[in-house]
Amino acid sequence: MRTYLDCIPCFFKQALEAARMAGADGFKQKKIIDEIAGAVVNFPLSSSPPEMGGIVYGVVKRETQNCDPYKEIKEKSNSLALSFLPELKQKIEKSEDRLLTALKLSILGNIIDYGVKNDVNVEKEMEKIINLDFDLDNREEKEVFDYQIFKDALRKTESILYLADNAGEVVFDRLLIEEFSRLNKEIIYVVRDKPVINDALIEDAKTCGIDKYAHIISSGVDTPGTILNICSGEFLKIFRESKLIISKGQGNFEALSREEAPIFFLFKVKCPIVARHIECKMGEMILKAQQMPVEQIEAGVL
Amino acid sequence: MRTYLDCIPCFFKQALEAARMAGADGFKQKKIIDEIAGAVVNFPLSSSPPEMGGIVYGVVKRETQNCDPYKEIKEKSNSLALSFLPELKQKIEKSEDRLLTALKLSILGNIIDYGVKNDVNVEKEMEKIINLDFDLDNREEKEVFDYQIFKDALRKTESILYLADNAGEVVFDRLLIEEFSRLNKEIIYVVRDKPVINDALIEDAKTCGIDKYAHIISSGVDTPGTILNICSGEFLKIFRESKLIISKGQGNFEALSREEAPIFFLFKVKCPIVARHIECKMGEMILKAQQMPVEQIEAGVL
Repeated sequence: MRTYLDCIPCFFKQALEAARMAGADGFKQKKIIDEIAGAVVNFPLSSSPPEMGGIVYGVVKRETQNCDPYKEIKEKSNSLALSFLPELKQKIEKSEDRLLTALKLSILGNIIDYGVKNDVNVEKEMEKIINLDFDLDNREEKEVFDYQIFKDALRKTESILYLADNAGEVVFDRLLIEEFSRLNKEIIYVVRDKPVINDALIEDAKTCGIDKYAHIISSGVDTPGTILNICSGEFLKIFRESKLIISKGQGNFEALSREEAPIFFLFKVKCPIVARHIECKMGEMILKAQQMPVEQIEAGVL
Repeated sequence: MRTYLDCIPCFFKQALEAARMAGADGFKQKKIIDEIAGAVVNFPLSSSPPEMGGIVYGVVKRETQNCDPYKEIKEKSNSLALSFLPELKQKIEKSEDRLLTALKLSILGNIIDYGVKNDVNVEKEMEKIINLDFDLDNREEKEVFDYQIFKDALRKTESILYLADNAGEVVFDRLLIEEFSRLNKEIIYVVRDKPVINDALIEDAKTCGIDKYAHIISSGVDTPGTILNICSGEFLKIFRESKLIISKGQGNFEALSREEAPIFFLFKVKCPIVARHIECKMGEMILKAQQMPVEQIEAGVL
């Protein structure tokens, strides 16, 4: 997704929140804002928003010398989400369609996102999810929910590349990955290389037990989205050879929505600009197949 | 009120909305954003937000050559509000406390503000106001509502300086000004000198019939707030000699909240930063006496 002019006020909002989270005082916050003001002038709107995100969080990191302000929040999100794991598993066990419920849980877990607002109440969100009746919800029509296309693609592949988003959310990814394991798929789980906001790192994936079901690697980036032209060569090779890619979160959608690859985007819509871009409502659960010629999806290699 | 760091993202939002309203295309919008980015770096946070507002709307005016993008909206707001005048007058006639009801109506009229959001539904807002039970509302406790102090000040003065805010809202000001007239007060009604957003001009005051009850003058500024150090000498002389000043709207509050003058601020709180600054809730109706030594209020000259 390109950057819209409406993203610009939000870049400043993100910079302020990140600066405060990293402990910057008022003067330092203004210095960071001024640097972002300079960067905005030179930022091409053809770039994706996470590219500016990389600049924003890079400036905050450099100016505050705080490399991981969300460390504690991430640990808390992981342990809180893990504490709900048995209940979440029960929801899948009891549901009419295990895969669909696991998919939705994985999307719902995407609410644990500190990039959009800084005061996520993870416990409250977890309880909302636990109380949701999936069999009832599964019968509802969704605006962007390409479940049939996803099932067809899943049947035709033996391996899945899974791009993670946030800590805590990883527990929800694990539920979906366990379902893939039951279907004998091989999974590579991809996390950020270094801290950015509350995005998942290798340690988060391990804490949440992903290593039991998947091979964990880093994409090589520390931007809030998988920006291919700065990813590691190792990751890029795997990405280009993948037959089914799951991309979690809005940031990964924004970074990858123009890539020709067999991607399925899973996320909650948390921004009015993204909502307008994909023509859906705010808060919607999205399962979106990358638009590309059918023969390419079927061949799986692009 | 000084400018908070949280005002900065909002300056960019305002610039975008104003640019679009003035018919700027995408390239022009980006040019305007870039210019505001440069201005933000040099903008002292000790200045009030309407000073940046002046820069923002000035850049939009220069770049788009559209001097009055809200002209039609203003005319519509005036005529719509005027069409409700008999009903509004009825509300005052029927109320237990005419002055209090007129004050509150004047504050409620402050909702007709296109500076905060671009999609005010004036008709809907008018109906909400018409349906409000003032005698019931008058018994509610308000957080910032210095009615007793206002009545005391009113008793001691023969003239009132009334700083207007928006077109349409002028009709609500008229109701309050009519009450002042019944109490034999002389009123000077002050509007902006040139168009900015939907702020009232001399023509709006005349259209809404203010000239029957007050002498209308301009403050000399075209900023969304009465910034004293750029006001005309004529206005400043009157301002400095006034014994009771009514300041309508958030912009005038932001511009004047640090001035030592016998001001009563009347506005709806439409911004979370202002709400935090005066320690009240969003949406609250404010009647706020300027904080100053009691003897100064009584003397009326500062």
